[in-house]
Order: sequence, then structure tokens, then C-alpha cells
Amino acid sequence: MKKSLGARTLVYPNPVFLVGTYDPAGKANVMTAAWAGICCSKPPCVAVSLRKATYSHGSIVHRRAFTISIPSVAQVREADYAGLASGRSEDKIAAMHLTAVKSELCDAPYLAEAPVVLECKLAHTFELGLHTQFVGEILDVKAEEEVLGESGLPDIARVRPLIYSSGNQSYYAVGERVAQAFSVGRR
Amino acid sequence: MKKSLGARTLVYPNPVFLVGTYDPAGKANVMTAAWAGICCSKPPCVAVSLRKATYSHGSIVHRRAFTISIPSVAQVREADYAGLASGRSEDKIAAMHLTAVKSELCDAPYLAEAPVVLECKLAHTFELGLHTQFVGEILDVKAEEEVLGESGLPDIARVRPLIYSSGNQSYYAVGERVAQAFSVGRR
Repeated sequence: MKKSLGARTLVYPNPVFLVGTYDPAGKANVMTAAWAGICCSKPPCVAVSLRKATYSHGSIVHRRAFTISIPSVAQVREADYAGLASGRSEDKIAAMHLTAVKSELCDAPYLAEAPVVLECKLAHTFELGLHTQFVGEILDVKAEEEVLGESGLPDIARVRPLIYSSGNQSYYAVGERVAQAFSVGRR
Repeated sequence: MKKSLGARTLVYPNPVFLVGTYDPAGKANVMTAAWAGICCSKPPCVAVSLRKATYSHGSIVHRRAFTISIPSVAQVREADYAGLASGRSEDKIAAMHLTAVKSELCDAPYLAEAPVVLECKLAHTFELGLHTQFVGEILDVKAEEEVLGESGLPDIARVRPLIYSSGNQSYYAVGERVAQAFSVGRR
């Protein structure tokens, strides 16, 4: 029997992405976003939704670019801090003792320490209400060689990304492999 | 040292959602989507991206509504099948021996057997390229009482949602709880 919980932002899982930007003065910043996901295959695009009140919002509007650094479970403190502090008043990347790398493909920085990063140019800006959805065209994905699997692509078990559960406001790790996609459902 | 992997749709994690629709004739259908996520808090909205070639795409355009049924790990065969077959030629819900429930809030059906479902009315339609992004305003979230935690909201460890890893095209389970959000990052 299903119970009604009301109109809420509850889905499982949500990602944990660190959105990298330069502000108008050129200071590198990152903020945490969970309202995000891939939204198109051709051109490859990823969407991140930010409140207009955030400092990063203005930076994306100004620079028309952003990156996504995917933190690992080992970086959970940094991932949480980057969602609590504001780049308006703090140098978050310095405070976390992390390293901003200037993208050669777009006008935004990514974190050297993140296992996987995406470099994006702003393709669309959609005003949805409290949040603005920024759709970025993915220009390149870069990954640490140590997280690559046999296929040459990142192995999720080596990336060890964080999952955000909005119901209890907690971070989780990825668990066991369940099945092969485009296979287990065939008769 | 980071290695360039090219312009690809690689993020970790992706969700696994079953998008529920009625076609113009009133037949209930579900299709699997991983290019999806929450995109606004007020009004609460969720985005799902579907290729124009899918049968569900036309149904959302026609009915201006959809649901999201979140499958559990135990429903991985069904979740995969619903992404392989087309509602144009098959009655997927009957083939899976699942039950379509007509939403009382929007013109779309959800799966009785899913632990968590969202009922959405179409708010925006964005053409991004190969994929169309449908933004739905979440009218209600419903969950099985057995997956609710102490807070009264779904406990991700009881929902046991699937994670899609696009790198190796595999499904994963959620693992251990890592930390409390809006807390672990405070000094």
C-alpha cells in the first residue's frame, strides 16, 4: 500500500558533483550540486541546477562555462564543505587544500584531485523557478589513469563516487554490481 | 595524471527510472531512463531526457504528463527489459507481469510494484539534440510503507534503488552510508 508524501524532490539516487567556475575577477571556485544529470547524448550534455542566490550562478552566466569534478568517497568532507561555504566570502579551493586546474577547452577550472572531471561550455540556460538549470555541452571527460578499467573507461568501483540521499540528507557509496545492462532483461 | 577520454556522457552515478505514460489510445507503458535527475526545488521538478524516436516521447507530448517509478535491485530484469522493448509493438507492463495504476493527479500510470513513484505534469519541453528533455512538476511522491524510515521518508537502504554505470553499461546497488550531509564538511 502506497503512502502519499507530498510534492517533494525525492528520487534515488542523486549524484554529488562539484561545479567548477571562475568568477568575473578570475578566482576559481567549486560548489556542490546534486540536482544534476546527463541530459543529451548528441551533443553530449550534462545539466546542473543552481539557485540564483549562489555565487557560482553568476560565474556561469558571466563565463558561459563550467566543469564538473566528481569527488570520491575519500573526499566526502570536501564535497560537503563546498556545499556549505560560499565563494563570495571564502576561497573554498584553498581552504580544502585542493588544486584548481585551468581547463584548456573552456573558461573554467577543475579539481586536480578529482578522479573524473568534465569540461563544459554553456549551451542552454533554463529558468525553472528557485533553480536555474544550466545545460553544458561536454567537451571532454578526463580521468585519473588509476580509476580506468579494462575498457579504458572509468570503473565505478575505482572512482568510488558519492551518492546523495535527500530523504535523510546523507551520502552513500556505490555497492555491488547487480547485472549487465542491455542484457539481463532479454528473454 | 589525467587522461583525456573525449566528449562522452560519463558521470557517476546515473539513476535508473521507469517513465510511465499513456499513449494516445490509453495503453499504459513504461520505459527506462538514466539521463534524468531533480532540476528544481520550488516548484519541485524532475527532468527526464528521451530520444524523439521512443514511443514514450510521443505519449508525453500528447498527454502532457508522466510518472517515474523507481525500481529496486530486485526488479533489475524488469528495469532492463523496459529499456530494450518498445511500447509501440509490445505491452511491456503485461509482459513484466506488473500492474499499472492510474494516477489521480496526472494523466499517466505508475507501477504498483515500485517502492517509490513520482507523479508529474509536464512543465517544460526542451529540445537539446538527440534527446528531448521533459521537465515535470512533481505533484506527489508515493512510497510503500515498508520502505519508509524513522523520518517518515523513504530510507534508501530499504528502497534499494539501482545505479546505472554508463562506462561498463552495468547496474549497481547502493552501498554503505558514508556521512551526514550539511554536517561532515563543517570545521
